[in-house]
Amino acid sequence: MDRATFISELGPVVEHSPWVAESAWDQRPFGSPERLHLAFDIAIRTAPPGRRMEVLHAHPELAGREAAAGGLSGASAAEQRAARLDRLSAGELARLRALNASYRERFGFPFISCVGEHSVASLLAWGDARLERDTEAEAATALAEVGKIIGLRLRQRVGA
Amino acid sequence: MDRATFISELGPVVEHSPWVAESAWDQRPFGSPERLHLAFDIAIRTAPPGRRMEVLHAHPELAGREAAAGGLSGASAAEQRAARLDRLSAGELARLRALNASYRERFGFPFISCVGEHSVASLLAWGDARLERDTEAEAATALAEVGKIIGLRLRQRVGA
Repeated sequence: MDRATFISELGPVVEHSPWVAESAWDQRPFGSPERLHLAFDIAIRTAPPGRRMEVLHAHPELAGREAAAGGLSGASAAEQRAARLDRLSAGELARLRALNASYRERFGFPFISCVGEHSVASLLAWGDARLERDTEAEAATALAEVGKIIGLRLRQRVGA
Repeated sequence: MDRATFISELGPVVEHSPWVAESAWDQRPFGSPERLHLAFDIAIRTAPPGRRMEVLHAHPELAGREAAAGGLSGASAAEQRAARLDRLSAGELARLRALNASYRERFGFPFISCVGEHSVASLLAWGDARLERDTEAEAATALAEVGKIIGLRLRQRVGA
């Protein structure tokens, strides 16, 4: 795979942040899917703090305005569908929307979770727990969730 | 800090697996707490699959038999206390014990979560959701949780 194909095929595993795949490319050869995932994580975790925060800000809300407007990336749309976030009950949707708003107001970045690991109930319960934490701890958690999302997306694409 | 001090001070950030700190030491200099954390993650994630699974098996259960017998590591005991796992109601304890048992029976390794990110309610809800997943996905999730636990422990020790 050449550089352009790598970036066009694997860039979208990180929301709206092709620079991550570009930086991961520089770490080749990878040798295994795990090393490939690690290269993406290293790219983000060794980036300046401002760039790391940009990755968080590039994420859409869960069942949020991007989803309502049909503006999700292909990967996000598929993941939110698989997690039933496009078919929430009115009560669930109201709870998740309120959580998104409270979270962004408190921490300044969107509520990010690797929804492939969750049920709707566990996602909502976890959101409530995370609202009680401090910003530094939540930024670390959010970045770790981004790493999990990247891992799931890479395993799907490399497996395919 | 010399090698022996590094391993004795930071080895315990990974449950009963000093080889991880030994491997991280070989990646110095670190330059930042984030790079130090990354060195531990790289050590685990580039280890042979069997060694990675040993790290999972080295983890105690949450409010499990190690906790009841006073056999937790200092870090685990403090984290489980902070998450109120030593003061669960009878109903919560029964639910968590049942979850631990079902999880181990289904996947063959203990239910591992970074409890610093959770309330009791979100931990139980998440456990129920994780029981529905497959073993490969859960092994990846469990290893990512181990990485989060390591990050929290390193931030505490390096901050101290």
